[in-house]
Amino acid sequence: MPNEAGAGLPRRLMASGHRGRARAAAGSRDPGEMGADEPLQHEPPEDVPPGQELAEREAPGHEPPGHAYRERKPPQREPRERESLERQIRFVIEADRLKKIARQSRITDGTRRENSAEHSWHLALMALTLGGHAPAGTDLGRVMAMVVVHDLVEIDAGDLFVYADSAAHARQEVAERAAADRIFALLPEPQAVAARALWDEFEERRTPEARFARALDRLQPMLLNMQTGGGTWVAHDVPLDQVLSKVELIEEGSATLGGYAREMIAQAVDRGFLRAVADPRAG
Amino acid sequence: MPNEAGAGLPRRLMASGHRGRARAAAGSRDPGEMGADEPLQHEPPEDVPPGQELAEREAPGHEPPGHAYRERKPPQREPRERESLERQIRFVIEADRLKKIARQSRITDGTRRENSAEHSWHLALMALTLGGHAPAGTDLGRVMAMVVVHDLVEIDAGDLFVYADSAAHARQEVAERAAADRIFALLPEPQAVAARALWDEFEERRTPEARFARALDRLQPMLLNMQTGGGTWVAHDVPLDQVLSKVELIEEGSATLGGYAREMIAQAVDRGFLRAVADPRAG
Repeated sequence: MPNEAGAGLPRRLMASGHRGRARAAAGSRDPGEMGADEPLQHEPPEDVPPGQELAEREAPGHEPPGHAYRERKPPQREPRERESLERQIRFVIEADRLKKIARQSRITDGTRRENSAEHSWHLALMALTLGGHAPAGTDLGRVMAMVVVHDLVEIDAGDLFVYADSAAHARQEVAERAAADRIFALLPEPQAVAARALWDEFEERRTPEARFARALDRLQPMLLNMQTGGGTWVAHDVPLDQVLSKVELIEEGSATLGGYAREMIAQAVDRGFLRAVADPRAG
Repeated sequence: MPNEAGAGLPRRLMASGHRGRARAAAGSRDPGEMGADEPLQHEPPEDVPPGQELAEREAPGHEPPGHAYRERKPPQREPRERESLERQIRFVIEADRLKKIARQSRITDGTRRENSAEHSWHLALMALTLGGHAPAGTDLGRVMAMVVVHDLVEIDAGDLFVYADSAAHARQEVAERAAADRIFALLPEPQAVAARALWDEFEERRTPEARFARALDRLQPMLLNMQTGGGTWVAHDVPLDQVLSKVELIEEGSATLGGYAREMIAQAVDRGFLRAVADPRAG
């Protein structure tokens, strides 16, 4: 059952004016490529110390070490294409900061909190593994793309605990929008728009892809909580009805996964990880 | 330029005998779904304490708290489908251990080593961002799937520094194959085979997707090294020719990214992160 829309998002997200150049077959040399027009073939002879062989072949005679690299032809790439690639790399480097954003959930061995980068990876793996439980026709490539970018805004806005109060959620929403404005704009224009649209789609939950991605995003911390003695449920004394409202979000994305989550919550109640009913006399 | 193969891998990877069930539209209730046949509608009235409302509606009268969850109908799901889902979840939970596998590279702020889960996420983001530099027709959905699973074997085998000696690489290869045998077999049969095939494809580097994925896997630590004062190059005093052999792997996946990497290496030499030529009198 091929789905033509399948590769849609990644292709759109990647659009950046480089397509013509990218058509060069792998391994072929485009004369316009910087530094790639002169393929290096270095299987150094065994009696030549590492590095020496290369310098000798490329800079014969009396050039100082490293000369071959410094004096290479200047890049032939058009300035705009070059700028575009540099912006993409800058975005990739900026994204690294997501590895420093701590979530509330702990990893399964309980030793530390999960960060948002590894959480995003876990969701992508879940999209691959559990994609069969998405509604028919769901574009799993788009789901993966969505979970990969969905938390980037936390680089500026930080992670908000899903059971925080509504005022905190409202403040977070404002902060995340500002973050999306800044972070996705690091990309070259057409990609910036596509990546932002992907993030908006996830937030709005109107497509099957967004609802399935969101279902995974809600299911994953429940799996971690079950592995860590109740995890954030116990640590924050989260009431059952709040957890059940997250189960509804899972059901909206996948009936099967929603059913699984509901069973898991019943177990969590049995094991004392969740209070079945709030005590009206409490707090 | 739609690419029918685009969604190919995720669809194959996700194949697990659940497709029939997954056809239920999002939000619809399949009577066979465990616990999902009775949609919960809980917008609790404001004067009812959290949790109370739900228990009252679903278990009116005198049942003890939590009863509604414990006494729900037993799952109608066929045992095989149920087992299949449980195996998928077990795989997802096992995969969490990748968050504990430390790589040699440090994250861009230099404060700690990167782990293999967040590294895999970074590669997936790079596939999205830099996919335009892959050869035309490259299936980026498959590239993403590949980078998401490629390091799972490190759960058992650990991460080997890319510049380790060839004996260590040979031992690592054996360990990784054994790990692949164990870890992918956690999945239900058809998925286990598909996931293993994906990992083999990455290792063998015969397809454009595998070569591009490998290029990203080689480029990413170079980007981190450039941000951390030379990173692993300096820490391990890696000779230039070894780094250049990795650049060749990048060029095999993408001429543009290979050219970019080559320029970066020239800068690394200029900045003293890499020795341009080995001193034959040394060591």
